[in-house]
Amino acid sequence: MAEGERFVPEETPVAFSYAGSTHAVMMATPADLEDFAYGFSLTEGIIDDPAEIETVEIVQEDKGIDLQIHLADAQNDALTARRRHMAGPVGCGLCGIESIEQAVRVTPSVRSSPLTLSEDEVVEAVRLLNGQQPLHMATRAVHGAGFYVPGAGLIAVREDVGRHNALDKLAGAARRAGHAGAAGAVVVTSRVSVEMVQKTAIVGSPFIIAISAPTALAIRTAQEAGMTLIALVRGDEFEIFTGAERIVSGPARRAGNG
Amino acid sequence: MAEGERFVPEETPVAFSYAGSTHAVMMATPADLEDFAYGFSLTEGIIDDPAEIETVEIVQEDKGIDLQIHLADAQNDALTARRRHMAGPVGCGLCGIESIEQAVRVTPSVRSSPLTLSEDEVVEAVRLLNGQQPLHMATRAVHGAGFYVPGAGLIAVREDVGRHNALDKLAGAARRAGHAGAAGAVVVTSRVSVEMVQKTAIVGSPFIIAISAPTALAIRTAQEAGMTLIALVRGDEFEIFTGAERIVSGPARRAGNG
Repeated sequence: MAEGERFVPEETPVAFSYAGSTHAVMMATPADLEDFAYGFSLTEGIIDDPAEIETVEIVQEDKGIDLQIHLADAQNDALTARRRHMAGPVGCGLCGIESIEQAVRVTPSVRSSPLTLSEDEVVEAVRLLNGQQPLHMATRAVHGAGFYVPGAGLIAVREDVGRHNALDKLAGAARRAGHAGAAGAVVVTSRVSVEMVQKTAIVGSPFIIAISAPTALAIRTAQEAGMTLIALVRGDEFEIFTGAERIVSGPARRAGNG
Repeated sequence: MAEGERFVPEETPVAFSYAGSTHAVMMATPADLEDFAYGFSLTEGIIDDPAEIETVEIVQEDKGIDLQIHLADAQNDALTARRRHMAGPVGCGLCGIESIEQAVRVTPSVRSSPLTLSEDEVVEAVRLLNGQQPLHMATRAVHGAGFYVPGAGLIAVREDVGRHNALDKLAGAARRAGHAGAAGAVVVTSRVSVEMVQKTAIVGSPFIIAISAPTALAIRTAQEAGMTLIALVRGDEFEIFTGAERIVSGPARRAGNG
């Protein structure tokens, strides 16, 4: 890159509006906005199925972007009841919560999911993700999230300055393409907070595979949800923090807790 | 580290309560909680001076920690007027905002600050920060923020799973130790979002120095605030994105935009 030039990622307020009323504002990378609208609505529990969204209008405003999401009528009532007034920079999903009890959300169980991965597939999923992040290659400043389906590879990758946003965009992209969450693994470049585990469980995937490290609360939450949490993937080494029963043996090596 | 053992950082809901009412809940590392209470109150504009806080009670609840912050009476009224019902995972400071206009906060100007740093001091600040992060050394999973005062070195370093929380804790620690923000530079390990620039400006420091990359909105906001934004520090090389007039020459080299 020439001296004096550098690509930096954009960051802009993105509002999610339902029935004409703003529900949340996130600081996010202004790309894949329809996926973001679907994924946010899914992981926040506003919808259970993409078909519940009738249209998404992307409205460019003076200082940000408003995603006007039109739901089927029956949903609007449910939304009003659980309206939470959320907003956050770079991906925030607990906003508007006024007590510790509300902040600790119930995470759905994915224990019954029969999906397993071989050690080789875990390594392949991360290798594929590392090769499919054009924005990160240019800026070195964004997170990536991919959905890995055994036999099919990475069926979608999304990027964002916020790791929660990247995961929401991925969730929207995967579900819109007709992939059930239970059919694959969420693969992320970022650290794993409890919220990343919660979003993965809401999407229905029994796997979260991360290049970076998890927090202790994320590990406990994955354990309780029956999710396989793999992190600190480096080359063909990785650590299995929870749910090792879903990893079937193969030539790839396992380090640490594995 | 022995196989099967790994230190992972804790992450817990931390509530900020004023006058007995919860104002925000953050997912944070449960350390340096008094600094967090002071720093959050400062960077959110709830107080302008640490003396406005009478006491901070740290109340361990079942599923989190409640910081009960007692202000002087006159402040309570001001707080009620600007109450925003915020919350966020891993450091969120825009929460509860219901419109894009509200999300784009006015950033105070630091243009009049006379502070300058030599190239050597920029490099030293980051070198010192890299050596003073015990939690990150153990976990590889947290962010660090330090306050560098020329001649005095790094007078405080704080760590957290959230980069905004690390900066808030630092702001509290520095101000409680009697250091004016204008006297030094904020040095962070993380990427620079617009909110990191805003918090730095509210603290009054004219410098933010980051090991990782900034977003485009962070650069524009630093420019408008008259702040010097340095990022992508690697060894003795760094890039000056805004405010190069505050860097006086020295033997260290400048790369990129410098």
